[in-house]
Amino acid sequence: MKNQFRTIYFKNKPSILQTYSIVGPKESSGPLGKCFDLKLTDDKFGESTYEKAECKILSTAIKKVIKKSGYTENDVGLLVAGDLLNQIISASFAARDFDIPFLGLYNACATVSESMIVGAMAVDGGYVENAVLGAVSHFATAERQYRYPLELGSVRPPQSQWTVTGCGSYFLSKYRKNCPCITSATIGKVIDFGVTDVNNMGAAMAPSACSTISLHLKATKTQPSDYDLIVTGDLGALGSRIVKHLLNEQGFNVDANHVDCGELIYNMDEQVFQGGSGAGCSASVFASYLYPKLKNKEINRVLFCATGALLSTVSSGQGESIPGVCHAVCVENFYD
Amino acid sequence: MKNQFRTIYFKNKPSILQTYSIVGPKESSGPLGKCFDLKLTDDKFGESTYEKAECKILSTAIKKVIKKSGYTENDVGLLVAGDLLNQIISASFAARDFDIPFLGLYNACATVSESMIVGAMAVDGGYVENAVLGAVSHFATAERQYRYPLELGSVRPPQSQWTVTGCGSYFLSKYRKNCPCITSATIGKVIDFGVTDVNNMGAAMAPSACSTISLHLKATKTQPSDYDLIVTGDLGALGSRIVKHLLNEQGFNVDANHVDCGELIYNMDEQVFQGGSGAGCSASVFASYLYPKLKNKEINRVLFCATGALLSTVSSGQGESIPGVCHAVCVENFYD
Repeated sequence: MKNQFRTIYFKNKPSILQTYSIVGPKESSGPLGKCFDLKLTDDKFGESTYEKAECKILSTAIKKVIKKSGYTENDVGLLVAGDLLNQIISASFAARDFDIPFLGLYNACATVSESMIVGAMAVDGGYVENAVLGAVSHFATAERQYRYPLELGSVRPPQSQWTVTGCGSYFLSKYRKNCPCITSATIGKVIDFGVTDVNNMGAAMAPSACSTISLHLKATKTQPSDYDLIVTGDLGALGSRIVKHLLNEQGFNVDANHVDCGELIYNMDEQVFQGGSGAGCSASVFASYLYPKLKNKEINRVLFCATGALLSTVSSGQGESIPGVCHAVCVENFYD
Repeated sequence: MKNQFRTIYFKNKPSILQTYSIVGPKESSGPLGKCFDLKLTDDKFGESTYEKAECKILSTAIKKVIKKSGYTENDVGLLVAGDLLNQIISASFAARDFDIPFLGLYNACATVSESMIVGAMAVDGGYVENAVLGAVSHFATAERQYRYPLELGSVRPPQSQWTVTGCGSYFLSKYRKNCPCITSATIGKVIDFGVTDVNNMGAAMAPSACSTISLHLKATKTQPSDYDLIVTGDLGALGSRIVKHLLNEQGFNVDANHVDCGELIYNMDEQVFQGGSGAGCSASVFASYLYPKLKNKEINRVLFCATGALLSTVSSGQGESIPGVCHAVCVENFYD
């Protein structure tokens, strides 16, 4: 009985009409460099603080995706967004720029797939015509808030990841021909395997990714080979190895078609160790790299599983371990 | 065209089967003292830190509302919750205790009505059978995070409010006779009137409350007199005066039936100045005081409008003003 609860179906096939991605200089020079819509040369985006820059990145991505979809602000009934900063100020302050109803979310780096699920329920259920979704992160604001001020020049351990300066925004609307649709989703439960190393988020999140992916496959009676790609958010190199191993134990072999956004976004010769992370990592990779491939029919079915580590500096300071969550969203081309 | 976007309708009338409320010692001795389900005599709830206590309060309220509704954890398809702490650790860590899919939200003290809207979409749209909703706050954790450690003994200015130690949880399911239903909602937009005084949240949130309430009344073609109560979250005494004034300018007189949860929860002779605040303020007042009145048919239609101030210590430190958001939810008895 339980499994079927987790997986929900969107019968009206809400479609992603357009996406928009913005990244910082480091991401621009990575392997996906040519895919992004806007590549910043200044990671302060002309603002006086990194926090204001992060907010402007999201706000700009929202504005641009609405325009790219051929709509105006007045046509959008819902904005669903989140970020990693305390009290999600990037999303809240970006929402201030728009005359659009706003729901703020927080599921750490799983926020982007969470926003897809809430948005898909709103559009599929007929509550709104159009919804704009988004998630953002910034290396400098995340380092300052979660770890150390950049000025300290702290040494990063080898199991650490690099928070992506980037954002992805999505325009979700009623079903359209030739636009990738959100057809089903599995909302993850919070899973804690007792990892306490705040530099090893991949290991903390891998069990939740395994749980959600295997539940989704079982509920939908599909096999990994039914998907062109099974995409995790920001497990990084180590976390990806763990999730493959855990899924194998569940009888699912994803070796052939698993990719991790955190591994895709940077060149491995950079000092990013395990790869990228952050709410903007999977958000920008889906917007820039996966969505166009879906739209061009290079690939036709993706299980997009952003992963989040639900810690805070206070919880870690009080000795708590790091729970993870992962939400899976099936995005696919539908042929009438 | 714009107004109708904001207001969404739940045609299947998802019903709130039960609510559960937990509050701290101060709230227990207030005017609503006899209404709460669980009154803590120890505001640490037997835990070693206030943060762990806040998490345990929410976790307990979730457990209790499921039991009170005659269900088990296995019957619940969705948990939607949030709180005021950085990275909403109270909700995330409480979710770890349950084998239930979890969506974490943040809209500050408007989180409870936001959770009602997301939950109502999920149940009304047929995506899940049952959803549990909740929001929590704790005086000691909020003071430490947003203002000063309690040990400092800082003097509070007269325009300040007192964060409620409390929680409300709700069990939402398909339509049932004799259970109050969520019939419509207006998702608020983020509004910023330029208030920068972090001790004056009521004034910062009042314009968003006015915007959402007037949009809801216009969209549904109702008058304030069509509701037994129009309830704001935690505007406090000053904020309530402002919202009445602003609504009056829009042609809506709510003098007769407006109440504010922040004004209801404390005795005015206490040092709470403008009244209560916090995500748990409106959440616990609705659960303990308003819901039973609806269920007993003492009242039949409430417009419940929790209000949130979307600031962080960083945004205020960087000179930003305080944007507000308010989501309105119509909860009413429906007669077949």
